Amino acid sequence: MARTVKLAKENAVAVGAHPGFQDIQGFGRRSMPLTPDEVYDLVLYQIGAMEGFCRAHNVPLHHVKPHGALYNMAAKDYTLAEAIAKAVKAFDSSLLLYGLAGSELIRAGKDMGLQTASEGFADRTYQPDGTLTPRNQPNAVIHEADAAVQQVIQMVEHGTVTAVNGEKVKLHVDTICLHGDNEHAILFANKLHETLCENKIEISRVQRL
Amino acid sequence: MARTVKLAKENAVAVGAHPGFQDIQGFGRRSMPLTPDEVYDLVLYQIGAMEGFCRAHNVPLHHVKPHGALYNMAAKDYTLAEAIAKAVKAFDSSLLLYGLAGSELIRAGKDMGLQTASEGFADRTYQPDGTLTPRNQPNAVIHEADAAVQQVIQMVEHGTVTAVNGEKVKLHVDTICLHGDNEHAILFANKLHETLCENKIEISRVQRL
Amino acid sequence: MARTVKLAKENAVAVGAHPGFQDIQGFGRRSMPLTPDEVYDLVLYQIGAMEGFCRAHNVPLHHVKPHGALYNMAAKDYTLAEAIAKAVKAFDSSLLLYGLAGSELIRAGKDMGLQTASEGFADRTYQPDGTLTPRNQPNAVIHEADAAVQQVIQMVEHGTVTAVNGEKVKLHVDTICLHGDNEHAILFANKLHETLCENKIEISRVQRL
Amino acid sequence: MARTVKLAKENAVAVGAHPGFQDIQGFGRRSMPLTPDEVYDLVLYQIGAMEGFCRAHNVPLHHVKPHGALYNMAAKDYTLAEAIAKAVKAFDSSLLLYGLAGSELIRAGKDMGLQTASEGFADRTYQPDGTLTPRNQPNAVIHEADAAVQQVIQMVEHGTVTAVNGEKVKLHVDTICLHGDNEHAILFANKLHETLCENKIEISRVQRL
Repeated sequence: MARTVKLAKENAVAVGAHPGFQDIQGFGRRSMPLTPDEVYDLVLYQIGAMEGFCRAHNVPLHHVKPHGALYNMAAKDYTLAEAIAKAVKAFDSSLLLYGLAGSELIRAGKDMGLQTASEGFADRTYQPDGTLTPRNQPNAVIHEADAAVQQVIQMVEHGTVTAVNGEKVKLHVDTICLHGDNEHAILFANKLHETLCENKIEISRVQRL
Repeated sequence: MARTVKLAKENAVAVGAHPGFQDIQGFGRRSMPLTPDEVYDLVLYQIGAMEGFCRAHNVPLHHVKPHGALYNMAAKDYTLAEAIAKAVKAFDSSLLLYGLAGSELIRAGKDMGLQTASEGFADRTYQPDGTLTPRNQPNAVIHEADAAVQQVIQMVEHGTVTAVNGEKVKLHVDTICLHGDNEHAILFANKLHETLCENKIEISRVQRL
Repeated sequence: MARTVKLAKENAVAVGAHPGFQDIQGFGRRSMPLTPDEVYDLVLYQIGAMEGFCRAHNVPLHHVKPHGALYNMAAKDYTLAEAIAKAVKAFDSSLLLYGLAGSELIRAGKDMGLQTASEGFADRTYQPDGTLTPRNQPNAVIHEADAAVQQVIQMVEHGTVTAVNGEKVKLHVDTICLHGDNEHAILFANKLHETLCENKIEISRVQRL
Repeated sequence: MARTVKLAKENAVAVGAHPGFQDIQGFGRRSMPLTPDEVYDLVLYQIGAMEGFCRAHNVPLHHVKPHGALYNMAAKDYTLAEAIAKAVKAFDSSLLLYGLAGSELIRAGKDMGLQTASEGFADRTYQPDGTLTPRNQPNAVIHEADAAVQQVIQMVEHGTVTAVNGEKVKLHVDTICLHGDNEHAILFANKLHETLCENKIEISRVQRL
């Protein structure tokens, strides 16, 4: 158990809860029309459950990031976003709330007085309004490692992203998301790590204030 | 929220987690052969989830009592009981562990250094060895309120229970269980409350040391 | 078992399958974005399961009517409606397909060569385009038995329904739906039965050709 | 669809229903204390569901073989076995019932007038009473392909199996079970196929009378 904490510190990693819809067959990636009260209960239940395992391994719960369809719905629906932020605050008001940069979830989190972390995506293209290109469009995903790494560097160093139409869009990003169920995830992470180090950009967990 | 705490204090009630098997159709009342590791995870997950709602209502989590088939299996199987006690301790070593008086669960809880509360049943008959008469036997359940109330008074005042064969058996009891899904549960609770008061027996939540 | 058949004949009732989303907590009333292939499998699975119990009771499976959110989605989405009709046809091309009068489901059923039955609702108001007033609008539900009975009589005798704006709309209806989980369902069914009899309108199961 | 039937004929394969407990997390391999009525409903439901897909692919349902824990429980418990056989008969009395050779399930099937198929296991050792060595004993599983193939040849040619104590036991076997989730399943099947062919033993689906 002490070993878990030590490893977490050595590797500058942190543990978050990743609550989502109770849709096992769809892996939480299918939208479901829950009411805000149902979403509040769902998120509170799953944060609590995660806390159990954090205690058992003596490592603090650091943040909450909604999963799959819940994340996407909360990016656009303030009422839903508010229900999630309310659950996080009810559990522990010092927890970080992760959400899509520029989303309703980040806005609801700030309104609730939570510390938020705006996520940027390395492997997805952006629209001129700063949203992600929907997955049903052909150019939604960035398949080349170099292009993805370049996008991250630009986010970090210039606070912008180049949208699909060539326009440069402002984008404040606190943390980068890499999908772990991508088959090239590990190679991709290595490449990103290497380039960030070469550019003297320090990689760290988001600091709780 | 403050109101929740106040009501809990005024009524001398306390909140416990009641973890059980994930068997919705069978309401957790069907035994399932899980490994000790699976039981540990199951209990830790459900205690944590309950903690979420306790925090939201600003009321402390007070105890853990396994539900249904898990409770009965843990009464007889030390390895299973130990997995449960381990999960309780990992979450919060100051939580009370409730179990059947004289059971392996109480034994495992004490071995793990937890504060335990031994349960007596108002509406079930006992065997000469201090175990409950199994439900598949005709005289397992006490249907008359007076007999049940009498059994509780005897447990509290004399530390004994009269087994089905007439023998008096020693039984140390810290708390009494009344099934809430019994159709006469409320009437029965009123009768018990009244008689305990008449006998100057104070009713209170089990005190955490 | 023979008794089941006899009762079915005596009471002019018939058995249908009522397939819906596998969302136990939401009782199949929450929309879920399944693909047409997933819907095809879901419907085929549940029709088959129903067939099992029909055989055990020696009563024929007569029709298929999608449940809850699946019914509503298939009323508007031809691709989904087609997947349902395809599953019905694959199982037994002589089964009746029930759907909302004027819906995409009825259209898909006819295109697939199935016998269809168009449903009218006794207790719901209609829009000028022949669709139901959505439940989130205040006048969606008819609460007075007399008004509901009158709406059914008008559907049957004149093939029309009076929309919320007072317009008379053509509506061909083969069968009437009464929700069984309405608390006044039985009283309401009695009243409807009585009035239909007084008007010499015969009540019968939809006949398979 | 016609192609499905043709492939089935060409390869001498047949489709069976494999009903089991609704325990997704445990893959149906954990025993659950259902009542005979619950088991009857469970089996009837799942046979019907399978029938749906057989019809869609125009291939007949050929047999029913209970899965996992249900199979093992029905091997020893006649009441449970009877509930399964009753469900098979209610669905289609010409379906074959597969069960462990010498089990209560085979006995219940015969009592119910069903055609049965007694299964032998290639990769499991046997006790002197003709039952399988339980999996919690070290020598339960045969790991060497040659030994397993030899056991099958002996079952087929001599109607016997050599138990773990060296005794030869009579065992009438109609069909051989190979677990598909064994990592060497394909290699093993090839070896068995090859040896049976060399021994001029014809491989075929069990014939329905």
